[in-house]
Amino acid sequence: MEIKIIVDAMGGDFAPKEIVLGAIKALKKDRNLKIILVGDEKLINPLLEQESSDLNVEVVHTDQFITMEESPKAAIKEKSKASINLAMQLLAENQGDALVSAGSTGATILSAAKFLPVIPGIERSALATVLPTARLHPGNHGISLLIDVGATLHCTAKQLVHFAYMGSYYVSHVLEIPRPRVALLNNGTEETKGGEVLVKTYRYLKEAPNLNFIGNIEGTDILKGTADVIVTEGFVGNIVLKTLEGASEILKHAGRYAYRKRLTWKVGLALLSSGVRQLKKRTDYSEYGGAPILGFKKLVIKAHGRSNAKAIANAIGVARQSVEQNIAEHIGDSIIEFNKQHRLDFIDI
Amino acid sequence: MEIKIIVDAMGGDFAPKEIVLGAIKALKKDRNLKIILVGDEKLINPLLEQESSDLNVEVVHTDQFITMEESPKAAIKEKSKASINLAMQLLAENQGDALVSAGSTGATILSAAKFLPVIPGIERSALATVLPTARLHPGNHGISLLIDVGATLHCTAKQLVHFAYMGSYYVSHVLEIPRPRVALLNNGTEETKGGEVLVKTYRYLKEAPNLNFIGNIEGTDILKGTADVIVTEGFVGNIVLKTLEGASEILKHAGRYAYRKRLTWKVGLALLSSGVRQLKKRTDYSEYGGAPILGFKKLVIKAHGRSNAKAIANAIGVARQSVEQNIAEHIGDSIIEFNKQHRLDFIDI
Repeated sequence: MEIKIIVDAMGGDFAPKEIVLGAIKALKKDRNLKIILVGDEKLINPLLEQESSDLNVEVVHTDQFITMEESPKAAIKEKSKASINLAMQLLAENQGDALVSAGSTGATILSAAKFLPVIPGIERSALATVLPTARLHPGNHGISLLIDVGATLHCTAKQLVHFAYMGSYYVSHVLEIPRPRVALLNNGTEETKGGEVLVKTYRYLKEAPNLNFIGNIEGTDILKGTADVIVTEGFVGNIVLKTLEGASEILKHAGRYAYRKRLTWKVGLALLSSGVRQLKKRTDYSEYGGAPILGFKKLVIKAHGRSNAKAIANAIGVARQSVEQNIAEHIGDSIIEFNKQHRLDFIDI
Repeated sequence: MEIKIIVDAMGGDFAPKEIVLGAIKALKKDRNLKIILVGDEKLINPLLEQESSDLNVEVVHTDQFITMEESPKAAIKEKSKASINLAMQLLAENQGDALVSAGSTGATILSAAKFLPVIPGIERSALATVLPTARLHPGNHGISLLIDVGATLHCTAKQLVHFAYMGSYYVSHVLEIPRPRVALLNNGTEETKGGEVLVKTYRYLKEAPNLNFIGNIEGTDILKGTADVIVTEGFVGNIVLKTLEGASEILKHAGRYAYRKRLTWKVGLALLSSGVRQLKKRTDYSEYGGAPILGFKKLVIKAHGRSNAKAIANAIGVARQSVEQNIAEHIGDSIIEFNKQHRLDFIDI
């Protein structure tokens, strides 16, 4: 079966070059793949023409695109022919099976919300991200999925349960961790912690079918690999992710700034650098193919803005796997079952 | 003027010994200080008797105390004569000017809420913590105050503004950073970010008198020293603080676990160890005298559970300074002014 992946060729710091090269890389590895590149044909075609082999690729032209500097909200509205909007419409019209973009996260999420149908029973989408974790716990795979990191700022208990299902299926079917341990991020491990919404969420998760819920975890557990899927509302997930990004930046600056004076520290940092590189490799989006936007009938993969060709090829590979595994359908089935069990179809919690 | 500090002698991992030794340390430095130690006189008196000098200290006896393992809620209710409860009652009865405890954070906050009168106009208390920061910004002092980290999980805009005032006064008068830059922790820097409560909070803070509000900051900014006071609700602050604690634990384990195989990494970490120690020193509660619980007419300082005598002596010093600076009254005046300006005395936002 041919799988068709739509790629926003104009999104990302190194677009369109690295995006197109990434698409070529993915196509060469996989003869059952077709890629639809959306963007400026004047820029894309010359890159494709450098290839001698016959590639299963189609270019859909538009000269509009959205930059990282624009307000996503305004840009999505005003630039109806921006590459991400056009790509999303093609996806909605079933001209492709999944979508990859390295463009603005906000614009990608808003465009998905505008054009894509949601999985029945699901109210809100979630952006998930893969975090590298220490292997301090048995059965840990060195990564955890944090969901949501900013698509839905504030959530009801029902929506958080949906996120738990979406994260669990993504981790088991795409990242291939069997029976992922799902935890709720909270300010304590007791069932009674976190206020009304989280207490309710805990109760639902405890009884949710097809879900390996291991309880509440605290902030201290996030990087320890205590859970494979960490569920939280988008506001908190965003703050956590960016706090960790900030801490990592500070560490990188340490050699240049704080420790400038001491030679032993400099030598120490130099000796550690291959370790830091290894860690960096593990935290690199390019290794995991990007951050999935979940909740829609079709999967959208948000690749990192700094994605190079390899990262884009990996993101396309992940998108391809999610199509093969049919994860949207799996998620949908579980959500319907859970909603029915709690008669949640018609009431809001 | 004699300043009287009440100390919970039974709270903390090394209580009562290190607590009593810390009190002695503080008393020896400062002849205008009186300390009231609350706890088991059978354990406290022998420690005091080892001192030859005449100390300005009083022991209030109780044989009840609350351990770290107990549920704070149940313990505060059932153990009416627990050292923290007795200490808090003495404070409420004006037998002391401020209180220091290294015991259970939850129990200390609940006991304060039970016995202490709040500053007029303030609805909720906040637990603040000092974070070490990089000096990447001009005018940065190497520390930032994060408020709240767990006393009030979810907040209204009005309550967040009150936290901003409390944090600002604490930082300017106790940590002695003039005109502290106050920021709101958010998922983006734009005024419109974060949902209804934070948008409203931003608007209030922008116009708040006697407050140096610099706008929203993101998680990436927390450790960069972008702001001197970082305002957030207790749930988010708790998750941020514990995420950073977890990251720091992982770094400490790195040498033993992840990098076990490579000699160069081990040597690198060894060379870095004095740098790590220096960082540890800067993150150490003992250097900043603990975490203030703000919002009550009297200041309570929560010293770290692992506090030694030096940390307790520093916490007592900070408590003393807050009394001298009369910060509760300063906070109260600004709150009343702000509430009046927005006619917030009677309406809930």
